[in-house]
Amino acid sequence: MVLMAKVRQTIEVNSMFSRDDLVVVGVSGGPDSVALLHSLLGLAARGGYRLHVAHLNHHLRGADSDRDAEFVRDLAHGWSLPATVESQDIGRLRREWRLGVEEAARLARYRFFAELVEQLGADCVAVGHNADDQVETVVLHWLRGAGLAGLRGIRPVSYLEVGQAWKRGQGQRLSLKVVRPLLKATRQEVESYIARHKLASRVDATNVDVSLQRNRVRLELLPYLEQYNPQFRQAALRTADLLAQDYDYIESKVQEAWSSLAREEDGAVVISLDEWTRLPASLQQHILRRGAEVLLGDLTDISAKNVLIAAEAMRGGTVGTEITLPRELRVVKGYDDFRLLLGEPSPAPAIIGEHKLTIPGTTSIPEIGWDVVSTVGAQPCPTMGQNPWHADLDGDAAGPELFVRGRRPGDVFQPLGMRQTKKLQDFFVDAKVPRRTRDEVPIVASPSRIVWVAGMRIDDRVKITKDTQKVLCLTFVRRDGH
Amino acid sequence: MVLMAKVRQTIEVNSMFSRDDLVVVGVSGGPDSVALLHSLLGLAARGGYRLHVAHLNHHLRGADSDRDAEFVRDLAHGWSLPATVESQDIGRLRREWRLGVEEAARLARYRFFAELVEQLGADCVAVGHNADDQVETVVLHWLRGAGLAGLRGIRPVSYLEVGQAWKRGQGQRLSLKVVRPLLKATRQEVESYIARHKLASRVDATNVDVSLQRNRVRLELLPYLEQYNPQFRQAALRTADLLAQDYDYIESKVQEAWSSLAREEDGAVVISLDEWTRLPASLQQHILRRGAEVLLGDLTDISAKNVLIAAEAMRGGTVGTEITLPRELRVVKGYDDFRLLLGEPSPAPAIIGEHKLTIPGTTSIPEIGWDVVSTVGAQPCPTMGQNPWHADLDGDAAGPELFVRGRRPGDVFQPLGMRQTKKLQDFFVDAKVPRRTRDEVPIVASPSRIVWVAGMRIDDRVKITKDTQKVLCLTFVRRDGH
Repeated sequence: MVLMAKVRQTIEVNSMFSRDDLVVVGVSGGPDSVALLHSLLGLAARGGYRLHVAHLNHHLRGADSDRDAEFVRDLAHGWSLPATVESQDIGRLRREWRLGVEEAARLARYRFFAELVEQLGADCVAVGHNADDQVETVVLHWLRGAGLAGLRGIRPVSYLEVGQAWKRGQGQRLSLKVVRPLLKATRQEVESYIARHKLASRVDATNVDVSLQRNRVRLELLPYLEQYNPQFRQAALRTADLLAQDYDYIESKVQEAWSSLAREEDGAVVISLDEWTRLPASLQQHILRRGAEVLLGDLTDISAKNVLIAAEAMRGGTVGTEITLPRELRVVKGYDDFRLLLGEPSPAPAIIGEHKLTIPGTTSIPEIGWDVVSTVGAQPCPTMGQNPWHADLDGDAAGPELFVRGRRPGDVFQPLGMRQTKKLQDFFVDAKVPRRTRDEVPIVASPSRIVWVAGMRIDDRVKITKDTQKVLCLTFVRRDGH
Repeated sequence: MVLMAKVRQTIEVNSMFSRDDLVVVGVSGGPDSVALLHSLLGLAARGGYRLHVAHLNHHLRGADSDRDAEFVRDLAHGWSLPATVESQDIGRLRREWRLGVEEAARLARYRFFAELVEQLGADCVAVGHNADDQVETVVLHWLRGAGLAGLRGIRPVSYLEVGQAWKRGQGQRLSLKVVRPLLKATRQEVESYIARHKLASRVDATNVDVSLQRNRVRLELLPYLEQYNPQFRQAALRTADLLAQDYDYIESKVQEAWSSLAREEDGAVVISLDEWTRLPASLQQHILRRGAEVLLGDLTDISAKNVLIAAEAMRGGTVGTEITLPRELRVVKGYDDFRLLLGEPSPAPAIIGEHKLTIPGTTSIPEIGWDVVSTVGAQPCPTMGQNPWHADLDGDAAGPELFVRGRRPGDVFQPLGMRQTKKLQDFFVDAKVPRRTRDEVPIVASPSRIVWVAGMRIDDRVKITKDTQKVLCLTFVRRDGH
């Protein structure tokens, strides 16, 4: 099939454009974007949509970058198309955004597209990814161990939330529809098209975006894989399309679940732990991933491994468990929900001083939002199930006077089940309590020693035995507002 | 983690065994199965399950095969375990089953396991796949373009329907639970374990099953991929586990849909077209795949591409469209369902002779299971929607005398929308009507020419025009039992 027919089919099958749409076309000046613009021009009249050329000068290759911009301006003029050509100092932006040059250039470009689409009242931006880009993308994702979201590769139509991701909190967030009419055409087909129509093009400036790894995949790995399966490229494209179907289906189910278990609040995404925990593992992952996407606008740099680690921490971790992922994305486990939020973590509220427990009775510790309820009896409390915030202790072994306090240097205790004492510090490390939240863990102690690291483990020497005469029941209860 | 701990964890996490289970252990005599047996022996007492050693002598390596069998017998005897050692002539079986030697050996072995499990009243068979086998498997699947089912790789617990797949219709079908306690242990860990415990083992006889392709992946491709990502093996295992979660979720939804849209009938799986068509593309694929699995017992040799092609044919094809997949699996589109069945296709029921239509009135054509209802009026029939089995013709142009007959050599007609006549033969080829079903397509013709290729297209010369005086409505209606 010639390129033009493939482009038309891709546009139709994916309902990319409607009559009277204004389509911004991202043109770098390289062969892909020139072929894209030329073929769209050939189809626009019949399709009833209009085109507007967009080019962002990245200033990454000196005078060459300026010549690219000039080339695109001339091309648009020659084909009587309106064009917007802008400049941006990527060097400055990448420092500001703390990103690699490729990533900064890509994000700057999409921000430019989003703003232009908004400003023109256009419908979408068309960009020049081809089928070989797709194969390379899925191979790269596969090499680093992606999940369904990554393995489906680049989609013909996608939506980006542009803004917050890299200018956090500054200014509005724009939703950008990105379409890729060349996605089913191979690089070879693009080159033949360029030759057949005698089109001029520049060395693809977006190649500055091409990582070393992608170039190695293109030039070395793919030809090597074709020794194993000469049809490997088609196989990889088929896999991507099949997985995209599965992804879309699962996402439709995520969508159904989303509104009941997630909400946005103060710039955070808050997810109900109870509902989330009851979902199948697949949906748990996909919901976490979506939370990150809602917050960041896209999932650049957030890997399947990141999501997996966060999901495991939210399933298994104690209250206060916090995972920090790339792009300053934090996932923090609360009492009955967990939060995804952005930015450097603030230091956790440390427990200051000592709080003497009223036994029996209720002791409030407002600074950390807990009440501690204590009772004394002959039997252990009716089971509190797996509540880590409840403990039954031998009242005589624990002693009459107990305090809640924060950890102190040199603290040791003898975790239930162990024969020897252990440094509290080592216990926290082994239990993977994040360094930052260690000061919030309430320690229940007598004047002489720790009896319970609340939420985690009692001391072996205060456990209930057959000789226990007096059972002390302690329960931490959250106060409203926490 | 040492091997034993990994094995115990894998057993526990996947609830492989219950107390008092009898576990058949497939032992080839190679390092994997010897390490598996030895570690299970170490855990069996505490776990409360019993072991029974099983070995199938494939007779593929002459005297070496006999020595393997002897080795396993001695090993079991030395460890005081009951053992069943049997022999099978794979050379004969592979000719009978028309399979490659690896595949025949594998199937013979699982049949042996299934029969032994049944005979002993055992619960499952444990086999020695390790984490490197898993990585190789997912890489092999990925190279050939698998979908979710293939990319999730080998699972810790799976169920096989053993029987029908390769001795079609002969004897009963057994359901076999297969567990893989070594699946999280690397080959390196197995080898260290063998060395540490000074265990003897044979050159792995299951290596006769290892294809040339798998050996190349093991020895060349994987080390090469590790140049791109030194953690590639872990990445591939993570991807497989993530995709397994997604697969399990989608399969749970397939299970929900299955009973309402699929049924088994006369050795075929019958799927309601109407319900199936309304499902998302993802579920359509997975349901077709499950249909194949129900019929074949497993999906060996049935690729994602096969399923994709069948799904496309069932969505887009005309009634009678038939796809033949590996292992003589046929997928045949009917009027309101499609069928998956096994075996060589029988020739389609040809339409014999001519059947004169009663106009107006109903004409039965029992041999093909249709009634033809005709009415005459001034207006086209109230719309029958997209029913391809209904046509409105210009009654005068069609003529008073019409017949239903099969195709004949030299038939030509002028398909609606065309200016010229076309050979019926060419029309069938272009419309991708399978050769075998062309004799079933009912042709409505006057003594002089074809007016309607029923179910497909009317002749352009009998279409309704503004000058039409008399409208002839023809509808093919299926009779009960067809």
